[in-house]
Amino acid sequence: MIETPYLLFLGDAPDMLAAKVAIGIRDWRPENAIGQISLPNCGADLGLTEMTLEEGLEAGAKTLVVGVANRGGVISEAWKEVLLKALELGYDIASGLHNLLSDEGDLVAASLMHGRTLHDVRIPSVQYPIATGIPRSGKRCLAVGTDCSAGKMYTAMAMDAEMQKRGLKSTFRATGQTGILITGSGVPLDAVIADFMAGAVEYLTPDNDEDHWDFIEGQGSLFHVSYSGVTMALVHGGQPDALILCHEPTRTHMRGLPGFKLPSLQELRDVALTLAKVSNPNVVVAGISINTQHLSDEEATAYCAKVEEEMGLPTVDPYRHGAGRLVDALAAI
Amino acid sequence: MIETPYLLFLGDAPDMLAAKVAIGIRDWRPENAIGQISLPNCGADLGLTEMTLEEGLEAGAKTLVVGVANRGGVISEAWKEVLLKALELGYDIASGLHNLLSDEGDLVAASLMHGRTLHDVRIPSVQYPIATGIPRSGKRCLAVGTDCSAGKMYTAMAMDAEMQKRGLKSTFRATGQTGILITGSGVPLDAVIADFMAGAVEYLTPDNDEDHWDFIEGQGSLFHVSYSGVTMALVHGGQPDALILCHEPTRTHMRGLPGFKLPSLQELRDVALTLAKVSNPNVVVAGISINTQHLSDEEATAYCAKVEEEMGLPTVDPYRHGAGRLVDALAAI
Repeated sequence: MIETPYLLFLGDAPDMLAAKVAIGIRDWRPENAIGQISLPNCGADLGLTEMTLEEGLEAGAKTLVVGVANRGGVISEAWKEVLLKALELGYDIASGLHNLLSDEGDLVAASLMHGRTLHDVRIPSVQYPIATGIPRSGKRCLAVGTDCSAGKMYTAMAMDAEMQKRGLKSTFRATGQTGILITGSGVPLDAVIADFMAGAVEYLTPDNDEDHWDFIEGQGSLFHVSYSGVTMALVHGGQPDALILCHEPTRTHMRGLPGFKLPSLQELRDVALTLAKVSNPNVVVAGISINTQHLSDEEATAYCAKVEEEMGLPTVDPYRHGAGRLVDALAAI
Repeated sequence: MIETPYLLFLGDAPDMLAAKVAIGIRDWRPENAIGQISLPNCGADLGLTEMTLEEGLEAGAKTLVVGVANRGGVISEAWKEVLLKALELGYDIASGLHNLLSDEGDLVAASLMHGRTLHDVRIPSVQYPIATGIPRSGKRCLAVGTDCSAGKMYTAMAMDAEMQKRGLKSTFRATGQTGILITGSGVPLDAVIADFMAGAVEYLTPDNDEDHWDFIEGQGSLFHVSYSGVTMALVHGGQPDALILCHEPTRTHMRGLPGFKLPSLQELRDVALTLAKVSNPNVVVAGISINTQHLSDEEATAYCAKVEEEMGLPTVDPYRHGAGRLVDALAAI
């Protein structure tokens, strides 16, 4: 668990795109985002109060979160200055960078000297068990995609937020570094040793109240040859009661795989449901989430209506239309 | 690559069951098995010449292979004495034990002092790439099972041996520690980081002659909730041209999962074929391998005939009937 709330470090982010993690925290856990701190040449602005490290502490921040991708894959000297001072002042630091905090001798030394914690959320901090498949109490919902980066995290986040708004019991369960930084905990599934993947997902989604829903962040796609094993572990380890199919309709090929066409929603439904039934015979496909960011409002509405007709399932873009109808669909499960 | 031939260390194996790795080497790569070396109270005997370390060296052995599971999960003092002397005399050591050779300070020190190599085949020694899915030349055959430990390695080994006997081009590609020790190389897939599993399988089975077959050692099962992610990576990373379905007909539940029934061969065929077509649209199910070790000769023959009739595919137990008909089935692909 990463201690909240956070001060969000934007560094010298060239633009908003590089600040994806910080944006996610601001949008999904605004109560965790006390303020932002930037270097002079920063091109990103979250619209939060710009603070010094000292001001962040006074406002209650416990952890400085690196909310930005670093350039060149290394933690620069300019960043180091801020990070070292943060440790000295009493912050923990959390990061999802490939360049691990714990690989930087000066940061490790400073964290030990000042009794602070470095959280590298990209690597597992737990020895996960082998999955047992034993049925768990409570309900679980997993988003599965026709492709990677089709909106699975957004869908799970939006459904969790809608449940909270309605006063229902739910938890977003992060399986990637962005989700872990947003919520403060989770499993970095793509970095787990193969034999323990499904066990890590079971660990992440333990027994719960019968009327509680876990919204498990999906990863990869059963149809993406690079990462399908990770998706498979989510389908079996997650023991989902409900699947949400996610799709981005303007893709011409699978992400990063120019020779590979996307499967149809029907193909995704059939394969995902067959496999999910192995761990939970009662699983159903509850709805469909379309990422319509590259469509106009009219196109988006028409596309969702067409899919809804073809598939016989509530179909929305949670970003445009809200996640209400997807959450409605869970009520019957 | 582990240097061959081997002297097989049987230690104080309580019985033959504990010497599974050594038996595999003797049976599948007899040319690699120069002799055996046992401690006084050893209950296993491979029928190879019992040798001292010095005699093994004279006979040409390059590597001392730990061919036995250790008791209590630790490398005992009695074993250490032999292993240290082996390094001193000029052997490399190879092991698939959980207790790594490289975690033993005295073994590491001795290997450095004498310029020898410690091979812990249970952990990856390579930084594998992310899978690309790019079509590869040559042919690949993957055994997939209704369950774990259904005879997938045996099937691949037997098909490879049959190909060699016929003077055809083929390679067994090991994906587990036993297979790696038998053949001297491979990928310990269950120990690979999730994101790189499919890439490791691509790395293991590169472009080859068009008439060359890779027989890829299967792992887990698409229907085994603990390990299905590993199997998925084999199906997509392996880009198989042919699948062999493996089944052990007397199992009452999935191995290690008392609540889980085995899928039917039809279910396995349908799911495996659908998923395998993602990476290779031309893949076919070529045959069926039945592990009949718990059936009589008559029962085995009758069972295989029944499955062959139902599934319309050549069905044999390669151990009883040979792998000839399975290899025949590849000729048309």
